[in-house]
Amino acid sequence: MARSVSSRSVPGELALIEAIRRRARSASRALRLGIGDDCAVLRPKTSHEICVTTDLSLEGTHFRRDWHPPESIGHRCLARGLSDLAAMGAEPVAVFLSLAVPRRLAADWVDRFLTGFLALAKKLRVPLAGGDTAESPAISQGRGGLIAADIVAVGQVPRGGAVLRSGARSGDIVYVTGTLGGAAAELLALSRYPRKFGKLTDALAGHPHLFPEPRVAVGRRLRELANAMIDVSDGLSTDLTHLCQSSGLAAVVEEAALPIHPLAAESRSVLELALHGGEDYELLFTASPQARIPRKMAEVPIHRIGVMRKASRGQRLVVLKSNDGRHISLEPVGWEHFR
Amino acid sequence: MARSVSSRSVPGELALIEAIRRRARSASRALRLGIGDDCAVLRPKTSHEICVTTDLSLEGTHFRRDWHPPESIGHRCLARGLSDLAAMGAEPVAVFLSLAVPRRLAADWVDRFLTGFLALAKKLRVPLAGGDTAESPAISQGRGGLIAADIVAVGQVPRGGAVLRSGARSGDIVYVTGTLGGAAAELLALSRYPRKFGKLTDALAGHPHLFPEPRVAVGRRLRELANAMIDVSDGLSTDLTHLCQSSGLAAVVEEAALPIHPLAAESRSVLELALHGGEDYELLFTASPQARIPRKMAEVPIHRIGVMRKASRGQRLVVLKSNDGRHISLEPVGWEHFR
Repeated sequence: MARSVSSRSVPGELALIEAIRRRARSASRALRLGIGDDCAVLRPKTSHEICVTTDLSLEGTHFRRDWHPPESIGHRCLARGLSDLAAMGAEPVAVFLSLAVPRRLAADWVDRFLTGFLALAKKLRVPLAGGDTAESPAISQGRGGLIAADIVAVGQVPRGGAVLRSGARSGDIVYVTGTLGGAAAELLALSRYPRKFGKLTDALAGHPHLFPEPRVAVGRRLRELANAMIDVSDGLSTDLTHLCQSSGLAAVVEEAALPIHPLAAESRSVLELALHGGEDYELLFTASPQARIPRKMAEVPIHRIGVMRKASRGQRLVVLKSNDGRHISLEPVGWEHFR
Repeated sequence: MARSVSSRSVPGELALIEAIRRRARSASRALRLGIGDDCAVLRPKTSHEICVTTDLSLEGTHFRRDWHPPESIGHRCLARGLSDLAAMGAEPVAVFLSLAVPRRLAADWVDRFLTGFLALAKKLRVPLAGGDTAESPAISQGRGGLIAADIVAVGQVPRGGAVLRSGARSGDIVYVTGTLGGAAAELLALSRYPRKFGKLTDALAGHPHLFPEPRVAVGRRLRELANAMIDVSDGLSTDLTHLCQSSGLAAVVEEAALPIHPLAAESRSVLELALHGGEDYELLFTASPQARIPRKMAEVPIHRIGVMRKASRGQRLVVLKSNDGRHISLEPVGWEHFR
């Protein structure tokens, strides 16, 4: 798309590029030139820096064609990138999509994928400015290729204004937006009853795995308030460990304070889902005890869940203060949904 | 990498991210924050616009593990992105790499891929600022997953200074840098004698397919001289057609004027390789007859190959004036190397 024909151009690819180009039309002041030249041209504000992130989604690793409706896959690809921008406090400028699809794919798959992708892009007012397409090679006789989608998200923040993982200070309060464990809980349900979910085509609230909501507006407002920030993509235990490592600090989190998604609350492994579930795409941030953090920002509840403190040698960086008063060291355990 | 752990983190991925992070260290004034946070942060010149391009390379479609040395695959991924920046007249600011590899891959494959990638990055002084990694899922019993690499290249040009495909004027002279057909000729040889090439690990001149040289320095200098520009990634016939379409014009190219790569000159299908071969990553541009285009720029020869003129209804956009005086309409035929 940025290059209008891939170097392995086939009729199917041309049609795909045309479909994307036709549907991606959107106006944006920061986008000077979109799909159709060698590059897209962006004009960010002169007082701003540029944030860039890329997220690769692979069939069989990040989604399954027999579980996820195409709209959900498109939505989730884009949500992953926008959530990274949100975690820097950045305002989205443009997104790019590299999409590999097999030659034999249900005729409306790409169309439905784009519907999900572009619905979220429209909601958050970010233009699809380019990308690339390729035909994913057949694997063997009778088995078509796999789908792969790489999303690039470009945002802007005032110079020096990006909120890094490394900015936390000892004594900072730890907060999280929204609720935890919902995405993992819904994925568990999806793995048991995929047919029940296969027709969901819209970003309805209450579908935290299929249609997560990247916290872009909250992230921007937190730029003035947060000392450190990361998005909860791999699970609280893992992402809080990253924040601690980057800041050279430790954290104590209170079990009683964790905001649990209603879907996770029904589960027998509620704590596990909330701590390690991942893909909630909430924002995890720290702020000074003096900072005035509202209980809600842009309609999203904000919960205080713990405190940052100095790291002690030989101890885990993240400790959970459980409801019965024990202190439990938390290992950064990523949830492996598809294994 | 931009996010330091993918949401499907596995030990192999962590090791891969660490290997990339360790090797990607580089200083650059425009790169404020590299690998290790939710996003990379770039600080382009305030008087400049941003150019962004993405290029997806898939095993079996863009390269073959049994033909291409890993160093060549790394080099070529990056070359594709940098060539798109060159074709806008942009100066590279940073590149990002999303890499999916199967769990079972020769131990040194990624290392050698990075060697090729980073050698070209170093030569052209562009930092690897982030990206993503994922494990490519196994396809079936005994068959590992495929390799996929998506490159994102970010560059900067003075405001309004990007050279577009659409800027050509009737009467403009058509030029091309370097030579044509070399990449396709070398690929033909590679397909016949893959073992002969399997150990080439360095970007030696004379390997136009395995180690193409993106014309970044020439592209920047052409910013002041060219009216329209595109890179020759899909072959002269296709890329000149794109330029004609974007500019609303036609072009006449002289067979006798085409600069032929020595490898292509040996072939019986010399003209076909030069016209449709693709992947030469040369710059194809137009300039006013009054513009002073040197015969060499940054050590690269520049050849005048034709002229732009008004398009006539019902006629092909690109016409070849053959050595025997005939006018041959050129269809934009992409070369399908792996089919």
